[in-house]
Amino acid sequence: LHRHTESPTLTHDPLLQEALDGIEPPDPGWLASARSHLDCLTKPLGSLGRLEDIAAKIASIQRTAPQVERKAVYVFAADHGITEEGVSAYPREVTRQMVLNFLNGGAAINVIARQTGAQVVIVDVGVDGDFSSAQGLLHKKVRRGTRNMLRTTAMEEPEMLQALHTGIELADEANRRGIHMAAVGEMGIGNTTSASAITAALTGASPSLVTGAGTGVAGAALEHKRAVIEAVLAKHHLDCSRAPVDPLQILRSVGGFEIAAIAGMLLNCARHRIVTVVDGFIATSAAAIACALAPALRDCLFAGHESQEPGHRILLEHLKLEPILRLKMRLGEGTGAVLAFHIIEAAARIYNEMATFASAQVSAAKA
Amino acid sequence: LHRHTESPTLTHDPLLQEALDGIEPPDPGWLASARSHLDCLTKPLGSLGRLEDIAAKIASIQRTAPQVERKAVYVFAADHGITEEGVSAYPREVTRQMVLNFLNGGAAINVIARQTGAQVVIVDVGVDGDFSSAQGLLHKKVRRGTRNMLRTTAMEEPEMLQALHTGIELADEANRRGIHMAAVGEMGIGNTTSASAITAALTGASPSLVTGAGTGVAGAALEHKRAVIEAVLAKHHLDCSRAPVDPLQILRSVGGFEIAAIAGMLLNCARHRIVTVVDGFIATSAAAIACALAPALRDCLFAGHESQEPGHRILLEHLKLEPILRLKMRLGEGTGAVLAFHIIEAAARIYNEMATFASAQVSAAKA
Repeated sequence: LHRHTESPTLTHDPLLQEALDGIEPPDPGWLASARSHLDCLTKPLGSLGRLEDIAAKIASIQRTAPQVERKAVYVFAADHGITEEGVSAYPREVTRQMVLNFLNGGAAINVIARQTGAQVVIVDVGVDGDFSSAQGLLHKKVRRGTRNMLRTTAMEEPEMLQALHTGIELADEANRRGIHMAAVGEMGIGNTTSASAITAALTGASPSLVTGAGTGVAGAALEHKRAVIEAVLAKHHLDCSRAPVDPLQILRSVGGFEIAAIAGMLLNCARHRIVTVVDGFIATSAAAIACALAPALRDCLFAGHESQEPGHRILLEHLKLEPILRLKMRLGEGTGAVLAFHIIEAAARIYNEMATFASAQVSAAKA
Repeated sequence: LHRHTESPTLTHDPLLQEALDGIEPPDPGWLASARSHLDCLTKPLGSLGRLEDIAAKIASIQRTAPQVERKAVYVFAADHGITEEGVSAYPREVTRQMVLNFLNGGAAINVIARQTGAQVVIVDVGVDGDFSSAQGLLHKKVRRGTRNMLRTTAMEEPEMLQALHTGIELADEANRRGIHMAAVGEMGIGNTTSASAITAALTGASPSLVTGAGTGVAGAALEHKRAVIEAVLAKHHLDCSRAPVDPLQILRSVGGFEIAAIAGMLLNCARHRIVTVVDGFIATSAAAIACALAPALRDCLFAGHESQEPGHRILLEHLKLEPILRLKMRLGEGTGAVLAFHIIEAAARIYNEMATFASAQVSAAKA
């Protein structure tokens, strides 16, 4: 992960700069003391595997015994100009329809959030539709979808900053409400095309490796999607094999409003020591942009799951994040991240609730 | 999976025979209709991956929309004569001490079961200790530990049948109480040695491949454990590369009371259409014995997780079961199975609670 401090945009935006400057890496002292505590619990050393790693990581982020009771998932919805090029199996209006489905509690994310006891926060950050009569939606629309990035930059700089600020402000608000753990997810027909372009631009992976079925394109339609991504990368000169590209330039050129908002939210949650869980391919592309801006962020994140989108594995390896679940999901909405809440909460409870060898009078291992 | 009907024991035991005869494979009609229902829900086709597979499998087992609200974990505890040979990192009395820890609610399985809302049932099926004053324990002790299988058969036939019957009867009792989903786990210092011997005898894998650290042996102690397992296999003529060995003969020679009880419980749960989730290496060795007796059982089981014990992967491949979680756990007690309850319950809720494209007025994919 290279730090790109040469971005001219960065120094011009005090809110973003404040979030970036406030991020501290997890505390190694807390990591060590959490490990010591876990070693005293009534189980063979290390036998809870990744649950122990997760508990220790939370302690090192929060600088306290893990606390994850108050949970929320933020679903950022936006449309994409690139859908004009026929890159998705679903029509563009599905973004708006699914937002209404979220508000009515009928989508997969609602079901899984109910199961985990997580609050669902739906944010319109750029949907091509009118929600003036919709109850329970956060109205943060920047524009009715990005521009077609095959023709021009997806976002003007002020638009991108507005979306980033939305994420930053929602992290402040989560902090005020005492949220311990937040998942970030998204809804946006066409957004795997953005995530693929971001992945290629950040990692240097070829368009053929980072392009997947999205909501379900195959055959000639998949070939077309790949060609569109290739053309988008060429148009915006996003070939990182020549020189590293400024992450905010990548975001502005080929990103989306929901991707910008997620990046802002992750950065500022880290500053507030809120545990964040990244969902699938699109959310992880936002995390990768954010980590390029602030490399210390990486150690504050959990990857909820590994998506079936081929670019997701490439991004997770780039970020050196090991996903918690591998269930062949590829839905988005935050579903994989919120499903991983169960595992993270189990880890925290193990830390807080298990007896020690001493308290339970259980014999230790032989010398 | 070979069916071994030539077992002389089998025909002599009416209770076991009744359980075996009652197992029906999951219903293909229900599988297909569950798939159709899942395809109508507001998500791209198949985009919930294994959650969809799990939901459809439950429907095909239960012959109804998935129901998994009433959950329990059965932890079978027993000691092992082979501990005389120094195969474990922990002293034998830890089995008894951990049973008391379970009853006091301080062990990992108590914590995870509380999180998932599962009842914990602790069964003494052969612990070397006196529990006459212990509250809340099911007293089903066959004997104070198996015999040393390096010297003689681990169990006499009536002892093995008594342990099998305990599992069969607990499945009847779970059915009477309306339990929808049961996990099976165990506690028994020395029992990875039994599981390793069973794995080698059933699959033909070499002792060096099926022997792992257990609770934490390494170096010379691990080499010694491997040599003990090799000697045990030779003593009982359990070389399946020459001829298939009767699964009940394997169980009696190198198994344990908890392994026999788990095998009985899984068989009879399948008959009652109770969804069962198998925990790690030891529980899966019991499942492999049970599947050798009744091959139709395999499609009624879920593998909760993949343990770090090397023999577990071999058993899962032998049974062609794909684990739900991979979290590098190796604790037993049912912890991996009960953690997987979260995922299985999410799958059931998705099936039952999500809106359809029609009900939510969401556009379908383009033709």
